[in-house]
Amino acid sequence: MAASEYLDERIETATHEEIQKLQDARLAKQLDYLFVRSVFYQEKFRAADLRREHYRCLGDLQRFPFTTKEELRESQAAFPPLGKHIAADLDDIIRVQSSTGTTGKPSFVGLTRRDAEVWTKATARSFYTQGLRKPDIVIHAAGLTLFAGGLPVKDAIEFAGAMFVPIGTGASEKALYAIQLLKANAMHCTPSYAAYFADWVRREAEIEPRELGLKKIFCGAEPGAGIPAVRAKLQADWGARVTEGLGNADMVPIIFSECPDQSGMHFNVPEYVFAEIVDPESGESLPIETGVTGELVYTSLERECVPLLRFRTRDRVTVLGTECRCGRTGFKLRCVGRMDDMLIVLGVNVFPSAVKDVVSGFHPQTTGEIQIVLDEPGPKVAPPMKVVAEYADAACDLTALRTEIERKIKAVLTVSASVNLVAPGTLPRYEMKGQLVKKAYENKVAV
Amino acid sequence: MAASEYLDERIETATHEEIQKLQDARLAKQLDYLFVRSVFYQEKFRAADLRREHYRCLGDLQRFPFTTKEELRESQAAFPPLGKHIAADLDDIIRVQSSTGTTGKPSFVGLTRRDAEVWTKATARSFYTQGLRKPDIVIHAAGLTLFAGGLPVKDAIEFAGAMFVPIGTGASEKALYAIQLLKANAMHCTPSYAAYFADWVRREAEIEPRELGLKKIFCGAEPGAGIPAVRAKLQADWGARVTEGLGNADMVPIIFSECPDQSGMHFNVPEYVFAEIVDPESGESLPIETGVTGELVYTSLERECVPLLRFRTRDRVTVLGTECRCGRTGFKLRCVGRMDDMLIVLGVNVFPSAVKDVVSGFHPQTTGEIQIVLDEPGPKVAPPMKVVAEYADAACDLTALRTEIERKIKAVLTVSASVNLVAPGTLPRYEMKGQLVKKAYENKVAV
Repeated sequence: MAASEYLDERIETATHEEIQKLQDARLAKQLDYLFVRSVFYQEKFRAADLRREHYRCLGDLQRFPFTTKEELRESQAAFPPLGKHIAADLDDIIRVQSSTGTTGKPSFVGLTRRDAEVWTKATARSFYTQGLRKPDIVIHAAGLTLFAGGLPVKDAIEFAGAMFVPIGTGASEKALYAIQLLKANAMHCTPSYAAYFADWVRREAEIEPRELGLKKIFCGAEPGAGIPAVRAKLQADWGARVTEGLGNADMVPIIFSECPDQSGMHFNVPEYVFAEIVDPESGESLPIETGVTGELVYTSLERECVPLLRFRTRDRVTVLGTECRCGRTGFKLRCVGRMDDMLIVLGVNVFPSAVKDVVSGFHPQTTGEIQIVLDEPGPKVAPPMKVVAEYADAACDLTALRTEIERKIKAVLTVSASVNLVAPGTLPRYEMKGQLVKKAYENKVAV
Repeated sequence: MAASEYLDERIETATHEEIQKLQDARLAKQLDYLFVRSVFYQEKFRAADLRREHYRCLGDLQRFPFTTKEELRESQAAFPPLGKHIAADLDDIIRVQSSTGTTGKPSFVGLTRRDAEVWTKATARSFYTQGLRKPDIVIHAAGLTLFAGGLPVKDAIEFAGAMFVPIGTGASEKALYAIQLLKANAMHCTPSYAAYFADWVRREAEIEPRELGLKKIFCGAEPGAGIPAVRAKLQADWGARVTEGLGNADMVPIIFSECPDQSGMHFNVPEYVFAEIVDPESGESLPIETGVTGELVYTSLERECVPLLRFRTRDRVTVLGTECRCGRTGFKLRCVGRMDDMLIVLGVNVFPSAVKDVVSGFHPQTTGEIQIVLDEPGPKVAPPMKVVAEYADAACDLTALRTEIERKIKAVLTVSASVNLVAPGTLPRYEMKGQLVKKAYENKVAV
């Protein structure tokens, strides 16, 4: 593959040893910074009886404690404005973003000028990995306020020299107009929006989405683009290559990115982030080998404002490979879902996205939209798991379809489900992140 | 005043002669560019029988034709994507913004990397002139998508080293939370939103706006902050200094900016824009002297994608002075309103903002909210002009108040008005730009 397929060839094609050496040096420097600048980590280290000299090389990192989202929330609440975990002067922070943008009180993440530059370079590399090139015209149909997939993406796409078209959410009419007028060939959005917008274009503009000429759809912020049946439908609808990225608002907006080989997302910012996969129960660090599944844990290697050590993301991932036809050496994974969304049916772990994959596989007999209804708070769910799914126009025998879907869920996910088929358009569509679980118990009247 | 009061002291305090020399050289270079790169202007110049040698110095500019917004709209429609008037390669455009963001089909404005840098520097200087400094924490409660007062402001505030908090519109709860948590001391928004948000904070959070601690409110996108009675109310509500800026999405987002002296907006980007004030009827260029009123006309001095020559803004302005206690040498003005909004009552020009000023002057007997009702399309309005205004809690005798307001409108604006007083909260509030005119005729049933 030509050198121009990489934005930063030296890093993207480096050997395991080269990366390890680089990360070793960077982590040592970051720890020097933490021991001097971070009150939050000074206290954590003291409590764990850890001194700077306990870290000599990457292997020593496992002796260091994890950092959790709850700690960051508590830190922000107890030490406003940005928590005890910020390690830069407030005066040097040029922007805040948020790790939840849609509901509830946001948890803020500060960026110094240097942090913003790192975010820009990291995010630009991600888009380049996904196939973005300078002449591309990219419709940004996602948030542009606190959402970490917004402004950093604007900076990154401009940095890469492509054209950024800031549309935002809830503006499908403007998105359509911009795509048509500018002859845009690319779009960045959540997979939920890509699905929603395809329906919208068909219904409101009476245009087949694929006629709009988008060739690259860059997805993120939730699983979806990586779910095989969901991706297949999106690609068919849009006539476009759909790729996905995965990141973390507290760390770097996009850390893993899928190359056009579409065989998983590459870890491709090794100079900014050290990534581990741990057993979510034991916290033990797992080897990064094909087939390994666990929780992603990140450590900042170059961060001024929010330098996090062994941050547990709650993202459940599976390693898909350690090499690729594209030549990138960063290992590849797929995100199965958030640990918080995981359900347990008679001891079996089930991610809502996996149920969506099974039901979407029945397209065109189903629309692919589902909702899992919980009568009691999870994660434990008494069988059969209640699944509401939309049939589609091609469905003729609903009774047979229902039985088939239940059989398939049992076969693939080894849990029993009871499927309720509803008319197309019944379930809610989302312009931002999708919600696959309905907490029916929240509306129950207390007895 | 200390040197640190200027972001670019050399430019901001330059003499008239220094600026003229600078603009002369830059305009010559920009014209070289137009004659080579702009098909739009090549055609316009040919039609007017103008050749490059007709321009030797700034004084010659008056021989060159105006450019109107209609021409740009037609150019975009006839030569998509961005019109015949773009003078850069599509591949070199890194972003589009829009000159209307809220309604209808947007008219797009492209930016090359160099254009974006110019916008950033110009906009940063504007905020600095208004008193923004590095330690400031700025809540951005305005659009962040196509709106030209959005992303360019983000870039500018970060460039100046202050903290940018991207809240957007329609998110008052988040804005309040961010102000409280981050102890923000500054806000950027439309004057309509500053008024709306003050009401919202009182009503929804039961907090007096001034208790929130904002000290600087930067306004723009519509007149309002410069209307004396409106400003006085905003400043009293918020306990903050309110300043305003004026710009143009097709040209530079902020071109005129008010210093803390609050005696009008300084022209303070003379190296990027040449500004004229013309008689809107005759098109004759007027001298820039205190008291002169006319239409603002801009010429790009450094622009790659959309280099406009003598662009008629439709902004009606009055020159307030040519020197200032702040030491800046750029002349000062106030924007009276958009020419398109101007009404004519028996030959007298009336801007809705002037009516709002009169009514707001009756605060606390009025809320300051008004609406002018048109029964026929303007600009000519048969007297008496219909004004709906909200009384406020302090009003006791509504009949007397009504008579007083009518008398004051007649005295100040020399037109007769019929005032209809309605209860506080009756008229619509706007989170983006306000609408002072109600086109009642649009809802009339055809006979």
